[in-house]
Amino acid sequence: MTDSPDSHAVLKARHRDLAGRNTQIDMTRGKPSPEQLDLSDGILTIVGPDDCSGADGTDYRNYGLGTGTPEAKAFFAEYMEVTPKEIIVGGNSSLQLMYDTLAGAVLYGLPGGDGPWGKVAGGAKVLCPVPGYDRHFAVCEQLGLEMITVDLGDVGPDMDRVAALVADDPAIKAIWCVPKYSNPTGIVYADAVVDRLAAMKTAAGDFRILWDNAYNVHHLGGGIAPLKNILAACRAAGNADRPIMFGSTSKITHAGSGIAVIAASEANIADLTAKMAVATIGPDKINQTRHVKFFGDLAGLRAHMDRHAAIIGPKFERVLTALAENLGGTGLATWSTPQGGYFVSVDVPDGCAARVVQLAAEAGIKLTPAGATFPYGKDPRDRNLRLAPTMPSLDEIDRAMDVVCTCIKLAAAEKRETE
Amino acid sequence: MTDSPDSHAVLKARHRDLAGRNTQIDMTRGKPSPEQLDLSDGILTIVGPDDCSGADGTDYRNYGLGTGTPEAKAFFAEYMEVTPKEIIVGGNSSLQLMYDTLAGAVLYGLPGGDGPWGKVAGGAKVLCPVPGYDRHFAVCEQLGLEMITVDLGDVGPDMDRVAALVADDPAIKAIWCVPKYSNPTGIVYADAVVDRLAAMKTAAGDFRILWDNAYNVHHLGGGIAPLKNILAACRAAGNADRPIMFGSTSKITHAGSGIAVIAASEANIADLTAKMAVATIGPDKINQTRHVKFFGDLAGLRAHMDRHAAIIGPKFERVLTALAENLGGTGLATWSTPQGGYFVSVDVPDGCAARVVQLAAEAGIKLTPAGATFPYGKDPRDRNLRLAPTMPSLDEIDRAMDVVCTCIKLAAAEKRETE
Repeated sequence: MTDSPDSHAVLKARHRDLAGRNTQIDMTRGKPSPEQLDLSDGILTIVGPDDCSGADGTDYRNYGLGTGTPEAKAFFAEYMEVTPKEIIVGGNSSLQLMYDTLAGAVLYGLPGGDGPWGKVAGGAKVLCPVPGYDRHFAVCEQLGLEMITVDLGDVGPDMDRVAALVADDPAIKAIWCVPKYSNPTGIVYADAVVDRLAAMKTAAGDFRILWDNAYNVHHLGGGIAPLKNILAACRAAGNADRPIMFGSTSKITHAGSGIAVIAASEANIADLTAKMAVATIGPDKINQTRHVKFFGDLAGLRAHMDRHAAIIGPKFERVLTALAENLGGTGLATWSTPQGGYFVSVDVPDGCAARVVQLAAEAGIKLTPAGATFPYGKDPRDRNLRLAPTMPSLDEIDRAMDVVCTCIKLAAAEKRETE
Repeated sequence: MTDSPDSHAVLKARHRDLAGRNTQIDMTRGKPSPEQLDLSDGILTIVGPDDCSGADGTDYRNYGLGTGTPEAKAFFAEYMEVTPKEIIVGGNSSLQLMYDTLAGAVLYGLPGGDGPWGKVAGGAKVLCPVPGYDRHFAVCEQLGLEMITVDLGDVGPDMDRVAALVADDPAIKAIWCVPKYSNPTGIVYADAVVDRLAAMKTAAGDFRILWDNAYNVHHLGGGIAPLKNILAACRAAGNADRPIMFGSTSKITHAGSGIAVIAASEANIADLTAKMAVATIGPDKINQTRHVKFFGDLAGLRAHMDRHAAIIGPKFERVLTALAENLGGTGLATWSTPQGGYFVSVDVPDGCAARVVQLAAEAGIKLTPAGATFPYGKDPRDRNLRLAPTMPSLDEIDRAMDVVCTCIKLAAAEKRETE
């Protein structure tokens, strides 16, 4: 043991000191900060009694229009880069649209298939690029869909493995994708990946790409990254019914009071619409109207996202700076440098992630549970951490990252001692 | 054939005359009228930036509180006559809560049961008092739940038959009830019916009463009818987990932009909460806050319903007056005299309902399709019509009822000729 600043003893003392400061900072989830939410306060009262009718006179205060108002469809079709016939504008939760889509597949099946996924011999399976989004995995787990992991690289999933798996096994019915500013690594799918996903041969006739474009416009200051249109690519490859695209304004306006959308081929939209017609009375059209009026047009939405970026971009910079200053060149961690989205992904030495989360909690820093970015909550190498910088203030981030970096070093030192 | 005003020839000529007037009136669905919707226009802008926090400082513009805000829970618990621990305040559609409850039962099962309803040998079954609500039936049909009809009388379902069925068959898992101002007959369940439903022996351990109290406060001018509390009655009988109660403000504020709730035992609420935590990001808390602020308290809500009654009460009177004046004493029709709700139910001679709907359509009056008030859309006697008086104006109702009564007489005359 030495007295170097990174010796086990020094790190332990440093951790004890940090734990004594009564800090309470939450970096677990991708929640917008109050300052971000303030940007959208105008939406609260923007729609009054004179704004509740459609261009054709339809009263949006009443029942009807189960797939959204024409104005909302036009707006969000442009947002999702599809036609108004290829979109359903729903309620406030894209997770609900994803769950309902998969639950509907399990119970009733999807176009191109041969029945409910719940009746597939041996069970239907879903490909899960990892690390990924815990709520996607929770939906699959609840619905009894077996998850098969594939590695997520810098430009998308390991396509050689994906293509081999889907070509071979008709029980593999879908793949989850967060194609832009991926949760948690922040990567953007390359055009070549989109093209391979669109064109690959699948043993299942009703194979679906679950395209959760949650961060479509959520850049960090460098502008919105381009992403090849998966529906257009699939259509060009003769597989128009393959993708189901999801989007939402949860991290654009007010989280929980936003608008969620599905975009897909007209055949898929017809199938989903028929299922939804039985399962719900329809979406909140007043809230759709609020969003259309608040943004005005897509340029207005993009300008709004620039204001978000001005708030959260510096927070990401602080996280990345702290990682570089404390862990750069140590070999103890690698991390993503996202250009958008809500997370920084950090890989620590194998077997250390859960311990880092525990040590950080002892020092008042709540991190996403280790393993959350993998199916069934189990990171096979116990190495991935997900940091969510948007909610804390800049000062809180500095304090939190001081703790996180110390905990990574300490966990690695502990591991060295036991080896 | 005679020349009496009700002869076939005279009726046919009269129908032809009515059909030539280019009338277009829709009496198909229970939609609030624009004047009713105007009553709630204040809710649109009532919540501004200063109203978006809970008493404990929680920011309702952000994620969280998947089962509703504390304020909304307190308000709607009083509305549903339960405690705040016995309620989930959800999104805008009680139909969605009902669908999700049953879909969750089919996929995963419910407390007290022995597995998913979808795995019940021979298929799970649901009792459906008839005439009833078409959307309840559509949910069962889509989920593959077999529907068994029982007659709905003046104080509730035929309880001798219900009790015998549920005692005998463990595959019978639930019964639909619209206990107050039933859709479509407007009846209110008697205390003795509530008590029998609560206490009856059921072969299924997870039998559920699906208590759709959609019209809890929706009187027509004579004040709100009392209804015995089904949860209290079930608890007293040792069957606390039996009822799942639903409610909504769809016909209180703006249809489609309201608040839907589930009330049930804490065990049921825990089960439903766990399922919802995976399936949705949570409800729109801002819209919940709008409702709480708009009403203030339950007295405020009740005063609001008096204003609805002042608008729709006279419409129901016009319908009932037209029926009495045109069909009273003819033996051609019997009808309900509702004290609340959204419908008048009319029974015409057997085999005539579909023809009446067709004849009315020819004269520009859209009625709910015959059979809609029965499972699978099939009224075995083809005799039930559902009239929805709320949407048309008083003048339109007079014109529509002129047509409807003429069509009933004409259909009966046609039937007599063929007999």
